Amino acid sequence: MPSEFRYARRVQFAETDLAGIVHFSTMFRYMEEAEHAMWRSVGLTIAERGGRYGWPRLDAAMEFRNPLHFEDEFEVVVRIAALKTRTIQYEFVLRRGQTPIATGVISCICAVKGADGTMKATEIPDEISGKLASFVTR
Amino acid sequence: MPSEFRYARRVQFAETDLAGIVHFSTMFRYMEEAEHAMWRSVGLTIAERGGRYGWPRLDAAMEFRNPLHFEDEFEVVVRIAALKTRTIQYEFVLRRGQTPIATGVISCICAVKGADGTMKATEIPDEISGKLASFVTR
Amino acid sequence: MPSEFRYARRVQFAETDLAGIVHFSTMFRYMEEAEHAMWRSVGLTIAERGGRYGWPRLDAAMEFRNPLHFEDEFEVVVRIAALKTRTIQYEFVLRRGQTPIATGVISCICAVKGADGTMKATEIPDEISGKLASFVTR
Amino acid sequence: MPSEFRYARRVQFAETDLAGIVHFSTMFRYMEEAEHAMWRSVGLTIAERGGRYGWPRLDAAMEFRNPLHFEDEFEVVVRIAALKTRTIQYEFVLRRGQTPIATGVISCICAVKGADGTMKATEIPDEISGKLASFVTR
Repeated sequence: MPSEFRYARRVQFAETDLAGIVHFSTMFRYMEEAEHAMWRSVGLTIAERGGRYGWPRLDAAMEFRNPLHFEDEFEVVVRIAALKTRTIQYEFVLRRGQTPIATGVISCICAVKGADGTMKATEIPDEISGKLASFVTR
Repeated sequence: MPSEFRYARRVQFAETDLAGIVHFSTMFRYMEEAEHAMWRSVGLTIAERGGRYGWPRLDAAMEFRNPLHFEDEFEVVVRIAALKTRTIQYEFVLRRGQTPIATGVISCICAVKGADGTMKATEIPDEISGKLASFVTR
Repeated sequence: MPSEFRYARRVQFAETDLAGIVHFSTMFRYMEEAEHAMWRSVGLTIAERGGRYGWPRLDAAMEFRNPLHFEDEFEVVVRIAALKTRTIQYEFVLRRGQTPIATGVISCICAVKGADGTMKATEIPDEISGKLASFVTR
Repeated sequence: MPSEFRYARRVQFAETDLAGIVHFSTMFRYMEEAEHAMWRSVGLTIAERGGRYGWPRLDAAMEFRNPLHFEDEFEVVVRIAALKTRTIQYEFVLRRGQTPIATGVISCICAVKGADGTMKATEIPDEISGKLASFVTR
């Protein structure tokens, strides 16, 4: 039973910096793109237009092992390390072929938009946690 | 009577690309930052939280003369070339000291958000056009 | 004989802004991504590591017709409007299905890196212009 | 004797996402901007044109407490938690007035560019560690 999701990506020119490599802040975007592709893979979207739910990030961290260059093809492997009542913790591995690029984590919390526009933490709907359950690492 | 606005900026590391210069798409962001600073200078904001109005871009164009490098200090000069019933056309000049960097134009239209979330063109409120009038080139 | 190239793309979360649509500066990045994919399709890269050539942009322009939203799938159609001794002018059409999103142009010039790091305009190598010739609109 | 550096910044439109707040990847850019401003404050630059040294990031992490919105003014407080032979560990606090926004860390390593373009770890030059010493937390 698959408990991870794989997202393939190529480095774009505007994602590099003067050091000739992908800027580290963009590596965080790669993780998020993989997260959202994982959601799509089970028929979900993390940001429904006009939807009630949002997923503010609680924390994010990465360790960088090797750089990515322009036009490099790489993959992001996503797993869910913890799927709790209100929060999700993702784990990510970035690889270019057999070369380790980076590892990372992102935690987020389920929130609903209040009438005044502010977000309030709430429980993850069953429909969502049910569909994401297959990615939870055991 | 001043008919232009000046915005000072420094190039940040993440704005450069592997060619060692600011990516051309970021030059468009510099123009927009100057536009918004111009609005603030007369007590306006282009995106009020919970506000009704939006300003979708109709077109944008730039000509590039010289590159910008990391930590370069430059200025963006903004003028309003045309302030019409529903649209604004801005003109921009980017300079690093006496060195010409780029020139550009952005046109945008005043829009209100409908109940279904789509934007619909409308007339620019008098309060806004009145405050921006001093920047119109004659 | 094909004289255009098609590049498929999906909108990512970080490419949207508070108006809920793709920021206009990112639309310029979409055009450039399509340009680079076109080069790859004929065995070229626009930025060889350690290579001599660079392709500074001379100008860029877009007209925006309809917005793009998160997770929208769209395509960028690229043609070469003019392939001259030193310069290339691209034309772009962005579409989401049958919905027109934007049109644009980018002009760039072939340059070689001098010993002092500055770029100097030069003639486009035959190997490159030969491979790009099939995309020139007649 | 001051052992921290303060960097003032305003949120720009293109830094927000469809949730109406600054995208979390941009928060990492804010930390880096503050780092580079700290270097400038003691007469250093982290990326000298044609220079030998680079500062690849080893890891980066943030915890997010409150969101930033368009045009928010905030400050980034930077300290150096550890200044070692080859590495620097920074600590960051982001605040909007008295409101905590985020905290973070970035570690980087001093590297020299080899003839083949790859980076190799090396000792931090005395001139640099001397100038940064005043920011080291004791």
